[in-house]
Amino acid sequence: MEQVSPRTLSGFMELLPERQVLFDRMAEKLRESFSLYGFTPLDTPLIEASEVLLAKGGGETEKQIYRLTKGDSDLSLRFDLTVPLAKYVALHFSQLSFPFRRYQIGKVYRGERAQRGRFREFYQADIDIIGDGALNIINEAEIPSIIYRCFNTLGLEKFVIRINNRKVLTGLFQLLGIGDKAGDVMRTIDKIDKIGKDKVFELLTDETGIPEAAARHIIDTITCHDERIAPLDKLREFQGQNELFDLGFQELSTVAQYMTAFGVPETHFKVDLTIARGLDYYTGTVYETTMTDHPEIGSICSGGRYDNLAGYYTDKKLPGVGISIGLTRLFFVLEDQGYLNDAVLTAPADVLILPMTEDLGQAIRLATVMRQEGLRVQVFSEDKKFKAKVAYADKLNIPFVIFLGEDEISKGQVSVKNMTTGEQTTASAAMITAAIKAGIANLRAGMPIKEPKK
Amino acid sequence: MEQVSPRTLSGFMELLPERQVLFDRMAEKLRESFSLYGFTPLDTPLIEASEVLLAKGGGETEKQIYRLTKGDSDLSLRFDLTVPLAKYVALHFSQLSFPFRRYQIGKVYRGERAQRGRFREFYQADIDIIGDGALNIINEAEIPSIIYRCFNTLGLEKFVIRINNRKVLTGLFQLLGIGDKAGDVMRTIDKIDKIGKDKVFELLTDETGIPEAAARHIIDTITCHDERIAPLDKLREFQGQNELFDLGFQELSTVAQYMTAFGVPETHFKVDLTIARGLDYYTGTVYETTMTDHPEIGSICSGGRYDNLAGYYTDKKLPGVGISIGLTRLFFVLEDQGYLNDAVLTAPADVLILPMTEDLGQAIRLATVMRQEGLRVQVFSEDKKFKAKVAYADKLNIPFVIFLGEDEISKGQVSVKNMTTGEQTTASAAMITAAIKAGIANLRAGMPIKEPKK
Repeated sequence: MEQVSPRTLSGFMELLPERQVLFDRMAEKLRESFSLYGFTPLDTPLIEASEVLLAKGGGETEKQIYRLTKGDSDLSLRFDLTVPLAKYVALHFSQLSFPFRRYQIGKVYRGERAQRGRFREFYQADIDIIGDGALNIINEAEIPSIIYRCFNTLGLEKFVIRINNRKVLTGLFQLLGIGDKAGDVMRTIDKIDKIGKDKVFELLTDETGIPEAAARHIIDTITCHDERIAPLDKLREFQGQNELFDLGFQELSTVAQYMTAFGVPETHFKVDLTIARGLDYYTGTVYETTMTDHPEIGSICSGGRYDNLAGYYTDKKLPGVGISIGLTRLFFVLEDQGYLNDAVLTAPADVLILPMTEDLGQAIRLATVMRQEGLRVQVFSEDKKFKAKVAYADKLNIPFVIFLGEDEISKGQVSVKNMTTGEQTTASAAMITAAIKAGIANLRAGMPIKEPKK
Repeated sequence: MEQVSPRTLSGFMELLPERQVLFDRMAEKLRESFSLYGFTPLDTPLIEASEVLLAKGGGETEKQIYRLTKGDSDLSLRFDLTVPLAKYVALHFSQLSFPFRRYQIGKVYRGERAQRGRFREFYQADIDIIGDGALNIINEAEIPSIIYRCFNTLGLEKFVIRINNRKVLTGLFQLLGIGDKAGDVMRTIDKIDKIGKDKVFELLTDETGIPEAAARHIIDTITCHDERIAPLDKLREFQGQNELFDLGFQELSTVAQYMTAFGVPETHFKVDLTIARGLDYYTGTVYETTMTDHPEIGSICSGGRYDNLAGYYTDKKLPGVGISIGLTRLFFVLEDQGYLNDAVLTAPADVLILPMTEDLGQAIRLATVMRQEGLRVQVFSEDKKFKAKVAYADKLNIPFVIFLGEDEISKGQVSVKNMTTGEQTTASAAMITAAIKAGIANLRAGMPIKEPKK
């Protein structure tokens, strides 16, 4: 038979079983957390008509798109979960209730240049709240509080959610007489974390054509936290001169205040005026989330407030707020930095039953009873040497192995070996089942992330 | 703003929230069931190199494929989960333990002609057990027993798993002197359910060139159950004349016998010699599953034994057995036939809190406490009339609504309305939380399928 060399495409994550279990655990914890806040799950097609998906158009996105022709149809793979949400809400508007709160965890596609830690197929985990005509500011505080809970539930401790408000920035630029260049200035200062103040100053003055005094003023203001000045205090001096600024300031203060009410401790969020987000899309509150010990990784969870979700599809005004976790990249980073919890039970079974008799009837019946108790059980039915059977359990990290021979069957008993301690016990099936259930409870409860001790 | 009309591609399922919850519940129940039998979850890319995915080649498949070019790469979307599994096992062979038991629930793509109930993007839910060099026959009985449990857990009661063995058929054809045409005969008799005996007889004699006596003999044998003769009894008369037949007969008897040991009641499986499966791929046991009240729908879950999973990628001999549920089509059929359980709680939240004060602090704190108890809680923070707020809960079928006004807060109490009974109660938050937990336990426990009473 002519053979083809098996391979997986570069930029496409394919995990080994133990890692897959951890990844799935992370996704499951996110689903649970999102559900606790009243979000409903959605699942939209991966493929859409190009005309629909690219309604907004735009350079970078379009270059990265996976596009194909099938019959007469011009099709594209989704590059995020926001555009499909916009389509969904516009299309099914009359059958939805607003505010519409949905989460979606799904794969998206971007043909980026392949490099370590960059993916072309990757999961995003998104939550959004969409209003019909209006949406209360409270939602802008709730969203990051959900993210706080999510990361906590995953086991991540050292992170900071950074918030800002684009109205504050735009108002500030207007005050400084450079309101017409707000978009460019926003995109430039958004890079300050990566390229530093001096380079941003250079870009603002040389490329964007901002007067030196204004550029200096902007940089000093947005980096006031370097001087240990609370950004909200710093902003107070600009109040009462620009309507947009005042509105943004009020929103930012409200969000910060309610985040505390929502239970986000002060250690885990801060107002940071350097957060601008590159996208024009956002109109108010914006978020980024940084791992405290690894700022170099950039934001692991970002989003913000937008005034009009689906303007390309409908005249209805649909303001919203949302946030997105780049799950595949986050998982890659966590593994890379040694943040995955190896103590989590990733074995495919809790118990491996090794039948020592020719007839497997007893082993199968025992397995059925144990499954009814919620245990994950495999009966090993291959014809192998005893040693090879135990090695199989060992290699897969199956925590308990049951031996079932003539002896045990005739006495109505079961022998079990705890593969971690090596301890071996013989007792009734009911007692062994109870003991195993107790034994694995801890293993199952583990969180997928465990931060390394410094 | 120039607008594009939002639409979803034909043949791509996109569900409304209530239906999505039921679909997800089905998938979750399948995952749980598969896990209880020691299967590990896998997730492989949706896109593979065309060269890898189409290694086997083959007409129909290739015509239906979604294929695209990105840069220099010739790429294809997967059309099933078996080829990606073959690639995965060949690629990661040295890091896996055998027998390798995996499940995968994922989307696959086939550009079939659009028609009602046919999908181009659809979920398959697959389980496979792969051996390294050998695989015990027991696995061929375990697979349908898992499917039995799966459908039971979903709430489906009236179905029959039909099993056969291709060695029996091939041996029988050899005995009748038409062994060289086994493949053609197999594909023809596989259609007997759809087109009937007479048409199959015609096709066998006219098109395949089978002598009339042999064709008659084949049809009489495989449809012996019509004459109320047990297929295994009928087959006994052919024993001892053909080695392949004898092996197949022994396998079929063993599988049938062990299915009983695995707990599949006689009402839910039968040996049916007309099941052949069109694919050459299968080499022994084959399965189909029919809904008893809707045989016209065809098989909702099919599979079988194969001797060599990954011959296109590796010299290793990897025999296996697997089965696949076409989840999207099944869901469509269930909905179409009124088999979905409308009593299942599909609301995005268990409780909606309506704060009656300007400050939402108390409402938020109450929500946090209730979430810690596992309740799914939404705080309604939009500025709407009281009636509109209650209507929101009503439309979303949220079962409990909490009113939190000055009065309640000052007394340290909470008022709750059971939206089903209309009953309203005021008590401490702890008592209300307990009452709601009890109230939703039933709703949550419901199975996604409920067969209509005849």
